[in-house]
Amino acid sequence: MSEESPVVEMTTQECWEMLRDHEFGRLAFTIVDEQHITPINYAVDGATLLFRTAPGSKLLGVVLGAEVAFEIDDFAGETAASVVVRGRARHLGEAEEHRAENVPLRPWVGSDKYDVVEIAPIEVTGRRFVLDRPWLHLRLDD
Amino acid sequence: MSEESPVVEMTTQECWEMLRDHEFGRLAFTIVDEQHITPINYAVDGATLLFRTAPGSKLLGVVLGAEVAFEIDDFAGETAASVVVRGRARHLGEAEEHRAENVPLRPWVGSDKYDVVEIAPIEVTGRRFVLDRPWLHLRLDD
Repeated sequence: MSEESPVVEMTTQECWEMLRDHEFGRLAFTIVDEQHITPINYAVDGATLLFRTAPGSKLLGVVLGAEVAFEIDDFAGETAASVVVRGRARHLGEAEEHRAENVPLRPWVGSDKYDVVEIAPIEVTGRRFVLDRPWLHLRLDD
Repeated sequence: MSEESPVVEMTTQECWEMLRDHEFGRLAFTIVDEQHITPINYAVDGATLLFRTAPGSKLLGVVLGAEVAFEIDDFAGETAASVVVRGRARHLGEAEEHRAENVPLRPWVGSDKYDVVEIAPIEVTGRRFVLDRPWLHLRLDD
């Protein structure tokens, strides 16, 4: 109804700022024909994302060049923002896994997670939404 | 370090309670070899999830029986919870799309979104985490 678009594309710089400001998102990946999605703690390292995962986790089955997608989002009052990173996942070997020690990346739970996975982005996009939740107003006005 | 497991599996009933209490999540799906993830507004309808999408959206390219995964999560102090629904997406035709009118399902933004998609669950799982973010404590104690 509004003349103004309720969805605004974010610039790449805005997307990276939001990625650096957050520490929690969801990773989507496919194993054979099974679609998976899981919450993860992550950190930005240069132009990549890093996260840790348990040895033997399902996720490590996918890190041989398959495409993954990662999402973070944020709500503030009447607006929301969502950033999506499509990229390729790679299990870092011993020579590189020290990179995880230089960023604020820790397992959120106290289990021993130590494999390090890097996501090298193919595409980074973000959108801001003006939220229009008519059913909330309907309830208030009833 | 703790003897108590920091991750607890939720029962199926707890998962559905959390699904009914929320209205926003993220849908993961694959088109050809491209992995996608997108935030969506949804509602529970019986033992299925419903959401609306724009005609011609990428998502409608996937709804012919392919597997999708949907996630919601929640943080409260030192604990977090995440529910994942793996299932099959189906574009509802005219005979069924009225189902979206009986649930609190509206587009969050004011654009004209009207195709209705159903997710029929294959598997519903949920986990609760006790968060252990050591770097926060490190900063506080420095």
